[in-house]
Amino acid sequence: MSPVRLPDDLVERGVEGKKIVLFVLDGVGGLPHPDTGLTELETAHTPHLDALASRSSLGAFIPVSPGIAPGSGPGHLSLFGYDPLEYVIGRGALSALGVGFDLRVGDLAARLNLATLDGEGRILDRRAGRPSDDEGRRIVEKVRDRLNPPEGVEVFLEHEKEHRVVLVLRGNGLGADLADTDPQSTGVPPLSVKALDPKSERSADLLKDVLGQFETILRDEPTVNGVLARGFAAYEEYPGFQERYGLRALAIAQYPMYRGVARLVGMDVLDIPSDPPGLVSVLEKHFQDYDFFFLHFKYPDSRGEDGDFQGKVEAIESVDPLIPRILELGPETLVVTGDHSTPSTFGAHSWHSVPVLLASPWARSTGTCFGESECRVGDLGTFEGKHLMTLALAHAGRLAKFGA
Amino acid sequence: MSPVRLPDDLVERGVEGKKIVLFVLDGVGGLPHPDTGLTELETAHTPHLDALASRSSLGAFIPVSPGIAPGSGPGHLSLFGYDPLEYVIGRGALSALGVGFDLRVGDLAARLNLATLDGEGRILDRRAGRPSDDEGRRIVEKVRDRLNPPEGVEVFLEHEKEHRVVLVLRGNGLGADLADTDPQSTGVPPLSVKALDPKSERSADLLKDVLGQFETILRDEPTVNGVLARGFAAYEEYPGFQERYGLRALAIAQYPMYRGVARLVGMDVLDIPSDPPGLVSVLEKHFQDYDFFFLHFKYPDSRGEDGDFQGKVEAIESVDPLIPRILELGPETLVVTGDHSTPSTFGAHSWHSVPVLLASPWARSTGTCFGESECRVGDLGTFEGKHLMTLALAHAGRLAKFGA
Repeated sequence: MSPVRLPDDLVERGVEGKKIVLFVLDGVGGLPHPDTGLTELETAHTPHLDALASRSSLGAFIPVSPGIAPGSGPGHLSLFGYDPLEYVIGRGALSALGVGFDLRVGDLAARLNLATLDGEGRILDRRAGRPSDDEGRRIVEKVRDRLNPPEGVEVFLEHEKEHRVVLVLRGNGLGADLADTDPQSTGVPPLSVKALDPKSERSADLLKDVLGQFETILRDEPTVNGVLARGFAAYEEYPGFQERYGLRALAIAQYPMYRGVARLVGMDVLDIPSDPPGLVSVLEKHFQDYDFFFLHFKYPDSRGEDGDFQGKVEAIESVDPLIPRILELGPETLVVTGDHSTPSTFGAHSWHSVPVLLASPWARSTGTCFGESECRVGDLGTFEGKHLMTLALAHAGRLAKFGA
Repeated sequence: MSPVRLPDDLVERGVEGKKIVLFVLDGVGGLPHPDTGLTELETAHTPHLDALASRSSLGAFIPVSPGIAPGSGPGHLSLFGYDPLEYVIGRGALSALGVGFDLRVGDLAARLNLATLDGEGRILDRRAGRPSDDEGRRIVEKVRDRLNPPEGVEVFLEHEKEHRVVLVLRGNGLGADLADTDPQSTGVPPLSVKALDPKSERSADLLKDVLGQFETILRDEPTVNGVLARGFAAYEEYPGFQERYGLRALAIAQYPMYRGVARLVGMDVLDIPSDPPGLVSVLEKHFQDYDFFFLHFKYPDSRGEDGDFQGKVEAIESVDPLIPRILELGPETLVVTGDHSTPSTFGAHSWHSVPVLLASPWARSTGTCFGESECRVGDLGTFEGKHLMTLALAHAGRLAKFGA
């Protein structure tokens, strides 16, 4: 997969109207139920989506590359037209964006896991028994209150969820090529911070100081008395939606990670209720103010990861009644798809292609049902996910002809 | 086509079980018979493959790039996940690997054709009347006994088959950018060895010496009295299966070229009988010792090259009864495919896409017959061959999720 490079001047700027709605049903792609041969999406009773499919272009996309199961970050970057093998978001930066932290260019971010150590400093539990969010926040506040930032940097700590914490160092010249301190096993002490290139040696020294203070401050805690750092990442700004596509973009998403990826590509982000009608109410309220809308609905993925076929079917069914409300707004292009497949028989993100429905006056329709079987033989064929945005722009009349 | 670069740490290491079998029916892809509209594969009576197809992911792959008919080397490199436009094996190196020669990094290899010259040194027959293997070996031994290696290099000669001989020079700084001495026509003398860059000038001088001695030694032979050199190639080691995929790999293949390519990517290689039941018996014997098995069956290609439609049908049918024996071993993933198409109406390797059957618990099935028509609308779509290994690894549960 090589980067999408739109030729210069292809994007039409200052277009009024011709709005694009990207409705992401997280993890929507599935595998057939052994008894019926139908996937979750094919099993779901979705009369409005099926009616829309019969006048839409259908297709299937591969999020990263054949055989690669994407995390949510790469899955969404691909949906947004960024080659996820070129634009790799470090876990630390993704976590920081996810909790709404105002990351700046040059910041060094890491994901910390709170852990339990024994009297000899060896890891007993890499997740400290998964503390409650209240307990996690208490620990973070305790460390934040007592920590002395090393000279020349600011230190930020944010609780993420349970045992997960985000650490950000802000200063000049902070290289991020650093090895994880999490040895990924118990019975051994955490690894020391280690620079993997000379530019990251100062960062390593600073982090040793900070993580050392962390453990000193927590020494008297019965359970949460250690910390493991993973996914060190420097934050670099991405070329955003306005710059690349001429789109004022709004993300309507509840979960921090999706809001984070959307912010990374320059979308405005609203924190909203996670129920599908709530998503669409926010869309209705802001429809005149933006050109592009990313709606994110998490539950098909959650039920797929639970291995709950019927629950995933019902999650998909819950969005179907909203389709007429979205169409009523008159978007030029409505895309309904997922960021990856999460088959409930597989119980995890998978590499299988993802069904796409693209409704537009310029669709070339082929099927009568929004499902994997019809999408794979649809007009768009099976394509790399990074091309979806270009297809959406084209179908919305927002791309000029290439060449004379 | 750009190289497949699997992100770091994606490959799960030290996985037990979850074995992958890649069963290559060489040249299996075909074109429809004019009377029936069915290809060789679609004509063949293959009840076991068809039953397996109905619960497998189907697809079609393009070995190199659309319109490019691959040789066996590029075809197999693509199957093994190596971009054949990036990893180019010189003919000489491939021949040397094929005869089991222990090539080392820096060796300079060439394919020699024994030829017949007239009294004026002009070529009468570029293949010396295709001598028997016994005769070819006798000639090679005669030259080997009398040849004085030029100073600073070792010279190795190995008989390959009929008129084909492998020459290897071992020494320091042997550039391989050299033009063939085979003029590809008769009635003219062989060309002199010519360096195409300055780094290969010493190699050219050494080869002139060796090939000159060759002709002197054979001067009294009635038929085999000349030699033509082709495909000069320096040997560079490839990153192997263990390193790239964490797989202990075994090749079960009869023909030297396929054994050679397999050895090049770090597979252990067994020389075995070419009948399909023999292939599977070897698989059964070694199934516990490896993670990945490459089974190569040559005859669909041979019959295709002969233009023998019915012969190719029968070659394909001969493997069908073996499918239950392979499945009985319990591989996590079984791939049945070819390295390229060899349509018998075309009578040669062609550029047409190659049908793929990928059986796994995580397959997304679409069809009921293993054939070109069903494969092209299968779940895997039409994809570049170099992605097949990634798909096989994913379906075998040997790849981690990419990104958070």
